[in-house]
Amino acid sequence: MIDEIIKAVKKNGDILLFAQDPAGSASSKEGRANYVTKYDVAVQQSLQEALLKIMPEAAFVGEECGCQAYNGKGWAFIVDPIDGTTNFMKNFRHSCLSVAAAKDGEVVIGVVYNPYTKELFRAIKDGGAFLNNEPIHAAAGHLAEELVTFGTSPYYEELIDQTFETAKKLHRASLDVRRSGSAALDLCDIAAGRSGLFFEYRLQPWDFAAGSLIASEAGALVGQMDGSPLQLGCACSVLAAGPQAWEDYFSLDAEK
Amino acid sequence: MIDEIIKAVKKNGDILLFAQDPAGSASSKEGRANYVTKYDVAVQQSLQEALLKIMPEAAFVGEECGCQAYNGKGWAFIVDPIDGTTNFMKNFRHSCLSVAAAKDGEVVIGVVYNPYTKELFRAIKDGGAFLNNEPIHAAAGHLAEELVTFGTSPYYEELIDQTFETAKKLHRASLDVRRSGSAALDLCDIAAGRSGLFFEYRLQPWDFAAGSLIASEAGALVGQMDGSPLQLGCACSVLAAGPQAWEDYFSLDAEK
Repeated sequence: MIDEIIKAVKKNGDILLFAQDPAGSASSKEGRANYVTKYDVAVQQSLQEALLKIMPEAAFVGEECGCQAYNGKGWAFIVDPIDGTTNFMKNFRHSCLSVAAAKDGEVVIGVVYNPYTKELFRAIKDGGAFLNNEPIHAAAGHLAEELVTFGTSPYYEELIDQTFETAKKLHRASLDVRRSGSAALDLCDIAAGRSGLFFEYRLQPWDFAAGSLIASEAGALVGQMDGSPLQLGCACSVLAAGPQAWEDYFSLDAEK
Repeated sequence: MIDEIIKAVKKNGDILLFAQDPAGSASSKEGRANYVTKYDVAVQQSLQEALLKIMPEAAFVGEECGCQAYNGKGWAFIVDPIDGTTNFMKNFRHSCLSVAAAKDGEVVIGVVYNPYTKELFRAIKDGGAFLNNEPIHAAAGHLAEELVTFGTSPYYEELIDQTFETAKKLHRASLDVRRSGSAALDLCDIAAGRSGLFFEYRLQPWDFAAGSLIASEAGALVGQMDGSPLQLGCACSVLAAGPQAWEDYFSLDAEK
């Protein structure tokens, strides 16, 4: 099944590459700085059609629709057609398509595709993680030797203070911070060992479903900011890190 | 002359693309989280040789050497062989080569090349700015409609508090923040209208010389954080923004 998902995802990646004036087609959604373009909608419709051909009985949970919610029973596709919509609108060339397949509430397939770099990240539960067919592994180093990526939960004004407080704390404890604008790609960077730790205080399941499996299959630890498991049914915080950096993070908190 | 500079820069870009184990060749420099790899040194030596063939009388100011300092008289090349060394070490694939030519203390040619995306940014004083031969222009929008990029001056512990304070303030005043790890590419993103404002509290001339000309030739305003002109002779803060976002930034400060 993963091969069919990859085929659908790569085909739709071209829509991002050849989009004309993405900002011109944008409209605001709920929350601050939250946008949708006609391309988000078009990619989601195209992916929904392709994915439900692969498995017609699956639920479909996508960012850009009031789609059938997933009750955690049976199969579901969890899809972000364009993760990094603001980057896409501003031509930052750092966005991706993210597709997860979940069974009985657990993600079992994750595919994330960056059409600008042609990097295809994928994982099947218990099968390891791959970047363009090469196995990838989370960073083994201490937090102090690694870069930290973070998301700002930009739609939520009330999370700004704690986000920047934690970013500053982790900047001091690491090599430096990065902020890319795509949580799915940040999780794949954890999987590839490029960064040592990622955090964001609030993400939706379509932001993290595929990336969290890819990161954990690459040997990273993934959960909420307090270490508890991720929730596929609702928004939650996300923490992902190499095993040593994960331990270092919780030691930092203990020092407070 | 710019064509010969571009030729030298593109040729050396391949060194980044095909580097083997860049982190393995890294050693620490002065300050926190400040590294040099054998590739920084190799690219600089190669660029120095090529550039001084173009203009043997020029001074050469490069990141990776105690090169002849520039007294602001006559010609000088100001070179960062790899801007974004930590990204390079960690395989973040977001680094560049930056070459400026200055005459009598003023940058008159700027070339910045990202070998991963093949994006070549260039400007000649009073000749406009170009990305791969297409003219580029700074963003016209208000700060509230634009992304903000920032640098963390990672080598300087004493700048962390004010950096994150300003980043948070600008996050609230804009769409969101980005932190890429390459100041030269951040300045080129200002030039291309991808982001509306960039700031960093301390950069060296080789970090900003080429990018600052490219940004200003694209219609951005560029200076220090207090609005005063950049200094080629020493480290200073850097602020670059589209004209409206620049005005909005100083209005924010006035509100304090």
